[in-house]
Amino acid sequence: MFPVEDVLAGNRLALARLLTAIENDTPAGRAALSALFPHAGRAHLIGVTGAPGTGKSSLVNRLAYHYRHPPDGEAPKTVAIVAVDPSSPFSGGAVLGDRVRMRDLTGDQGVFIRSMASRGSLGGLARMTAGVVQAFDAAGYEIVLIETVGAGQAEVDIARLAHTTLVVEAPGLGDDIQAIKAGILEIADILVINKADRPGVENTERALRNMLNLAHPLPRVYRHHGALQEVLPAVAEAPADEAIWIPPIQKTIATRGDGVPELAAEIARHRTHLEASGDWERRWRARLQRELEDLLQDALVHRWRREIPPNYYEDVFSQLVQRQISPRQAVDALLNGGREA
Amino acid sequence: MFPVEDVLAGNRLALARLLTAIENDTPAGRAALSALFPHAGRAHLIGVTGAPGTGKSSLVNRLAYHYRHPPDGEAPKTVAIVAVDPSSPFSGGAVLGDRVRMRDLTGDQGVFIRSMASRGSLGGLARMTAGVVQAFDAAGYEIVLIETVGAGQAEVDIARLAHTTLVVEAPGLGDDIQAIKAGILEIADILVINKADRPGVENTERALRNMLNLAHPLPRVYRHHGALQEVLPAVAEAPADEAIWIPPIQKTIATRGDGVPELAAEIARHRTHLEASGDWERRWRARLQRELEDLLQDALVHRWRREIPPNYYEDVFSQLVQRQISPRQAVDALLNGGREA
Repeated sequence: MFPVEDVLAGNRLALARLLTAIENDTPAGRAALSALFPHAGRAHLIGVTGAPGTGKSSLVNRLAYHYRHPPDGEAPKTVAIVAVDPSSPFSGGAVLGDRVRMRDLTGDQGVFIRSMASRGSLGGLARMTAGVVQAFDAAGYEIVLIETVGAGQAEVDIARLAHTTLVVEAPGLGDDIQAIKAGILEIADILVINKADRPGVENTERALRNMLNLAHPLPRVYRHHGALQEVLPAVAEAPADEAIWIPPIQKTIATRGDGVPELAAEIARHRTHLEASGDWERRWRARLQRELEDLLQDALVHRWRREIPPNYYEDVFSQLVQRQISPRQAVDALLNGGREA
Repeated sequence: MFPVEDVLAGNRLALARLLTAIENDTPAGRAALSALFPHAGRAHLIGVTGAPGTGKSSLVNRLAYHYRHPPDGEAPKTVAIVAVDPSSPFSGGAVLGDRVRMRDLTGDQGVFIRSMASRGSLGGLARMTAGVVQAFDAAGYEIVLIETVGAGQAEVDIARLAHTTLVVEAPGLGDDIQAIKAGILEIADILVINKADRPGVENTERALRNMLNLAHPLPRVYRHHGALQEVLPAVAEAPADEAIWIPPIQKTIATRGDGVPELAAEIARHRTHLEASGDWERRWRARLQRELEDLLQDALVHRWRREIPPNYYEDVFSQLVQRQISPRQAVDALLNGGREA
């Protein structure tokens, strides 16, 4: 059994070792996650996504620094940064942009930075990230910044983890086309135009505002539409009369810190909105149900796989490819697991 | 049992009734699909997707007309059109834009048009669409045009059905931003700029060409990355040395038919490429494996659901939400199905 108490007591080395165990999906890591589960649920999970070149990493840095050194009268918050790069094979300590990141944050015991990389499937990466985020949450980090590189399904999956998702744009990225992606707007709670001192910032802002006007009200990804929705009850369905949140647009210049206090204020406003509207609780329930269904599907497939003879799947698939049996007949054969063969 | 022989013999009424049975996922529909399966696999499945306002429907019309009335020396081909609208609750005959569509095609026994709409989950829609496409294929239609409205996961799922996917753009749609989406380029085999007589066509073409240059070589969606990839062998993985297809950009004016013969030539060239490179076979195998895995996962969940007591899932989920148990413990409880409770 992993020393869960050490993690809960704030031992950074124990936490680092736990994160590695979670990434490697070891039995000890899984057991520790189960033991930590009752302690999680207090952190504000903030997703930060956007195309390469938007300055996401600098912005995440600055936000972390802001939470560590808030204006007078506010208490500093502990911050974890999870930097996820689906295209990178490197994982572990602080690999991604660590020199830039660490300059202001090095030696601060209230900050923990972890880089995550893909080791195969995006689904696996999303599951690992969920475990790492939960570990930080249980370990008492008040703010967890989840930074994702690129755009696509990985971002959507990871945004589903977050309470608040920032989508970062920047002027002048390939005629504003590169940066603005379908699906991304659907997950944005706050739109950030970073590098706002660049030419073309008005065009980027106008384009985003047009899209917001066109797209609003947006479908919310935290509504539960799991694979099992036709079988299992939609426990976490959001009510039709939910309060509407219109994503604000915040301009920043992360390299100088301009706009970062205002961005932190918008993030705090979104958290207040989530709590007041009941969405904080609903997102939590939806996240849990999604996690449960994913684990259940995996477990059912694994159990089935253990029960069938070796090469049975390959044999059935081969018959299917040769059109000797139909897909439904193949499934029936697979479910029987060779017992009637 | 459904009169499968009538469908194979070209009886349009029998086919229409079968399509309805497939959409309603009736036992008779499922049995008929199994019986038809050995007869499918000959049609060229062509996906056509793009944002609203790009003139996709007119283009699909014109393409169908072209295949029915080819240049001298070519044989006409039979054409099925499957128009999928994930946002519409209407399904059945020809609902979507039927008046425009039917003007040139009405009364032509070599054309069959079917509209499909969402009845719940997108996953369900993709599965229904796969069944309908397979029915057209088995019934002997040589070209199946699968038209999807909007952008997002539905398009990607449906593109996975097609051998050749056309992504349709048009000039002047919200500063060219609306129309060009992430993920869409990943699925495009051919890029079409429709409404090419509009101002701004050069900008759209330049933007597309820039994106192609940046993005190439693109990840191909027909590579198999199913949910079960870590459990089951990747039977359908594409080899690393596959021949590279660079998506061409074809300008059209669908309302006048300009560029449509050239587009049909590009489609034919893509088919030749698929067959020569072995990708025709690989896409077929990947499609089959995806279908098999989807059906297997569904079947495993359904079988599990039948075995557990009523309200057992709800009880376990409730304990999870109250943090009395962890997600892994919840899955263990669900797998035990209350037998040890």
